[in-house]
Amino acid sequence: MGRTLVVDGINQIGQKIKVSGWVNSFRSHGKIVFIDLRDRSGLLQIVFSKPELIKGAKDLRNEWVVEVEGLVGERPEKLWNKDLATGKIELDAESLTVLARAEELPFDTARPALEVTLPTLLDYRPLSLRHPSVAPIFKVQEIIADSFRTTLKSLDFAEAFFPTLVPTATEGGAQVFHVDYFEKDAYLSQSPQFYKQISLGAFERVFTLAHAYRAEPSVTTRHLTEYVGLDAEMAFIESYLEVISVADKVIRGIFKDVGTKAGDILKAFGVTVPKTASETPKIKLREALEIIYQRTGRDSRNEPDLAPEDEREIGRYAAEEFGSEIIFVTHYPTKKRPMYTYPDPESPEETQSFDLIGRGVEWLTGSRRINNYEQLVSNIKKWGNDPAKFETYLQAFKYGMPPEGGFCFGLERITQNILGLENVRQASLFPRDMNRVDITL
Amino acid sequence: MGRTLVVDGINQIGQKIKVSGWVNSFRSHGKIVFIDLRDRSGLLQIVFSKPELIKGAKDLRNEWVVEVEGLVGERPEKLWNKDLATGKIELDAESLTVLARAEELPFDTARPALEVTLPTLLDYRPLSLRHPSVAPIFKVQEIIADSFRTTLKSLDFAEAFFPTLVPTATEGGAQVFHVDYFEKDAYLSQSPQFYKQISLGAFERVFTLAHAYRAEPSVTTRHLTEYVGLDAEMAFIESYLEVISVADKVIRGIFKDVGTKAGDILKAFGVTVPKTASETPKIKLREALEIIYQRTGRDSRNEPDLAPEDEREIGRYAAEEFGSEIIFVTHYPTKKRPMYTYPDPESPEETQSFDLIGRGVEWLTGSRRINNYEQLVSNIKKWGNDPAKFETYLQAFKYGMPPEGGFCFGLERITQNILGLENVRQASLFPRDMNRVDITL
Repeated sequence: MGRTLVVDGINQIGQKIKVSGWVNSFRSHGKIVFIDLRDRSGLLQIVFSKPELIKGAKDLRNEWVVEVEGLVGERPEKLWNKDLATGKIELDAESLTVLARAEELPFDTARPALEVTLPTLLDYRPLSLRHPSVAPIFKVQEIIADSFRTTLKSLDFAEAFFPTLVPTATEGGAQVFHVDYFEKDAYLSQSPQFYKQISLGAFERVFTLAHAYRAEPSVTTRHLTEYVGLDAEMAFIESYLEVISVADKVIRGIFKDVGTKAGDILKAFGVTVPKTASETPKIKLREALEIIYQRTGRDSRNEPDLAPEDEREIGRYAAEEFGSEIIFVTHYPTKKRPMYTYPDPESPEETQSFDLIGRGVEWLTGSRRINNYEQLVSNIKKWGNDPAKFETYLQAFKYGMPPEGGFCFGLERITQNILGLENVRQASLFPRDMNRVDITL
Repeated sequence: MGRTLVVDGINQIGQKIKVSGWVNSFRSHGKIVFIDLRDRSGLLQIVFSKPELIKGAKDLRNEWVVEVEGLVGERPEKLWNKDLATGKIELDAESLTVLARAEELPFDTARPALEVTLPTLLDYRPLSLRHPSVAPIFKVQEIIADSFRTTLKSLDFAEAFFPTLVPTATEGGAQVFHVDYFEKDAYLSQSPQFYKQISLGAFERVFTLAHAYRAEPSVTTRHLTEYVGLDAEMAFIESYLEVISVADKVIRGIFKDVGTKAGDILKAFGVTVPKTASETPKIKLREALEIIYQRTGRDSRNEPDLAPEDEREIGRYAAEEFGSEIIFVTHYPTKKRPMYTYPDPESPEETQSFDLIGRGVEWLTGSRRINNYEQLVSNIKKWGNDPAKFETYLQAFKYGMPPEGGFCFGLERITQNILGLENVRQASLFPRDMNRVDITL
């Protein structure tokens, strides 16, 4: 007999099926034993009442892996469990096979919420990942990644695979991991930025899901040392506004897909996807700081960036004024953006750059890039770097690069933000930070 | 006027369009200048004959980026270029805008084949990638990656994202890159093996496209130090044959999709997708070695593996006997496989492992895994490792792991093999080997 997923048992009342999974919880009442069996589709109540099965059933413990054949029956209406997709049925067991035992668990996994601290949850990641309050986070993450690809493919973007071993720090700066590369030195890529730009010559429109590494010497709720970047880049643009438009489509596609495909998960997490307006508001940084001053009296008008409290305030402004939980802030100062960012010809101290602020925090960043070779070389020098170290990158511009731009955002962080998770580590299967590479390090 | 891709010009005869792209080739004949313009859709001949455009057109050089408005006209039949999708039309230019210049090129990019050595092609990757003999390789690569995902999603596999910074060498051995991780040591993952196994608790069926790193201290035509692994793992299997069956579906899906979506590219590369039989043949290693002995007199019957000449011979055997260019070889010796490989209960010195030999070389490898905690701990010790170093991995088994198995193959290598490329570096956008991390290292 082939295996049936527990959720498909709903349509098999009166029939014999075989299910397999983990014992999610276990209740023994003398001559009858109940378990909730967990498989990737959900939970199912199984009743062991046949005398020949009772002894084996009483030995079961949480997280043992079992295979059970039995008859699907409808529960009496007063025993329906409305919180469960399979809440109207139960399986009357006719056989029991133990596929694997589990040792004593370090904490009680049978509750709807895991009542342990995040470090404990991470120390026992192979166990805690299975929990119905944890596994769905990664279902949402998968939907986000798929949606990113689907929207961009519909816009004729190609997917590409770039290396993460690089000869020099992508964005400059010290927060880069060094790798012993035979007799030489290499680094872990801080972003696929240079390669997605270079590859425009082959693809014109390209995206990648790329591991990126930041040697952040601090532990915060928003940073990982390794994360997945969702990166896109497009050539032959008329203006940076085209790049914003594509980023907006990608983000709206994600909201739509998560809302459609993971409605039950959003409900379980007590959240909704962010509200959007018919057009996502756009505002220059200078204007944003002025508005914040008008609204709060807090004067950040000479600041080159939004402080966290400014991001929150501009988020409130967007929600109140436009009914939008997302807003693009544009025109960050040249000196605060990477050397490849395109200066606005009308005010060269500002760039044609943008951040997407979602629910009061930064979600996504992008810009038009400098595509003129001489201008780029000059900026590399101005930023204190040696153009010789960027030889491969610069070739792309030396041999003809069209006007172009792009954007990127973090897969873990957008998962965190949509689900309202407190810590970005919750949105990473196996998070890495300064203190943690699994538990063995 | 919006941009039209050159291939769409075919349907716009008599109309005015705007195209943009790179000057792929250039011919000046006094009062008339021809260029082939290249964009992501293909090539288009553009004619500059208007006196006011001639001077600008004569300044053009290969790889300059231009935008041209003009009238689409049909060429006289005797001038049709049958090798080109746009070979029946040309654009009569009415305006010319130079978007970017290119400096003098290091080699002639205007020919259908790039007549430079592979090292030169790689030294100038930003330029050579654009070439019509190079860019399509990555179109095929994208189709392969998509097909892998699509087949597995249709079989209810989930996609997951695993870290590549790891606390210990995944497969043991010395060929691992060391990373300075703050005050500690970390390594670059040799494969997502452990994490895909661990995550079965959340997903049951999981796949990932994962960067993997091998510190191979040698330079061959088949190895990269960084590559993309296509990895799948599935729980609740009845037998290793289920794993083979899924691997077979994935590979056949790739052949089908590449054949359907990249027929023109296959033709240009002078290849076809591998022939398959209604059922892919399977043979145990011992039997394979016996057959090779019978066919060639070469006696490798006591060898624990197939030598390259044996792989080629068993490939010929599969083609001749079964009309199949792929064959599964199973039951490799326990001592030649990783410590987590499941021993065949009927002959424990053999494993329930398999390789897929395609066109006489290894394409894919997989096995059923040991899911019993005590057996796995015992094997880790037997292989000379310390179980304490595998604490996170072992938790997955300590707390209940169903019978499971999986497989993996390299994205670059399968691209190489399908397209018949001489060197795996040709199938990597920016290949890394012992001597090369771009050209700056």
